[in-house]
Amino acid sequence: MSTLTDADRTAIDALVATLESAWNAGAGDAFAAPFAPDADFVNVRAEHHQGRQAIAAGHTGILRSIYAGSTNQYVVKSARLLTSEVALVHVAAVLDVPSGPLAGRMTALYSMVLVRTGSGWQIASFHNTLEPPAR
Amino acid sequence: MSTLTDADRTAIDALVATLESAWNAGAGDAFAAPFAPDADFVNVRAEHHQGRQAIAAGHTGILRSIYAGSTNQYVVKSARLLTSEVALVHVAAVLDVPSGPLAGRMTALYSMVLVRTGSGWQIASFHNTLEPPAR
Repeated sequence: MSTLTDADRTAIDALVATLESAWNAGAGDAFAAPFAPDADFVNVRAEHHQGRQAIAAGHTGILRSIYAGSTNQYVVKSARLLTSEVALVHVAAVLDVPSGPLAGRMTALYSMVLVRTGSGWQIASFHNTLEPPAR
Repeated sequence: MSTLTDADRTAIDALVATLESAWNAGAGDAFAAPFAPDADFVNVRAEHHQGRQAIAAGHTGILRSIYAGSTNQYVVKSARLLTSEVALVHVAAVLDVPSGPLAGRMTALYSMVLVRTGSGWQIASFHNTLEPPAR
């Protein structure tokens, strides 16, 4: 098992930053761009979307409705190689929604499986779970 | 990209059946056995456990307390190779809890990342999300 090089870790951090900035710009297509064409996506409602196009369309929809104007902060909690071509990454998310039915702050933890391609790392799998509200 | 052979799919189905039977026997150690020693596990509360020993201890605890006497039914919804050595699997779970604070039925979707080893597939990553209650 090889370990993540500094270059790999830099690339993974950049990928996460791309997701964050795309979300914060309300840009569903840009959010989906780092995903593989056949990527799997499980959201916080356990809904399973398949394919970059579906992920883009879904995010375009929520970023114009329930999550309009929201901001996400992502922090990489762990990143490691499973094989030389596959990385597993866990990211903590803090989402602030300014208005609407979901107004307020939500926190979540998502995992991603990244596969190394000729043009860099692509997201093959994304899975997200909300933390329960504090009591 | 190679596709899953019938033998691989059979092995993956058997691994999922092992998880299910271990849960239903209330056996935390057996539940954790298919995990890699350094596996990552994210539960439905977005809590992140690392390592087979922690996964075994955590499951021993919940299977003796909040989930005592519960039964899980697992159905593999999709399974595909990400590389020749790594498989991505999504499983639907139906959990029936007979008594206690969580009594009732819960449904969830979990994803697993499996890595091929000399002794078969091992779980490197497990991530679980509850479906919202029906309204």
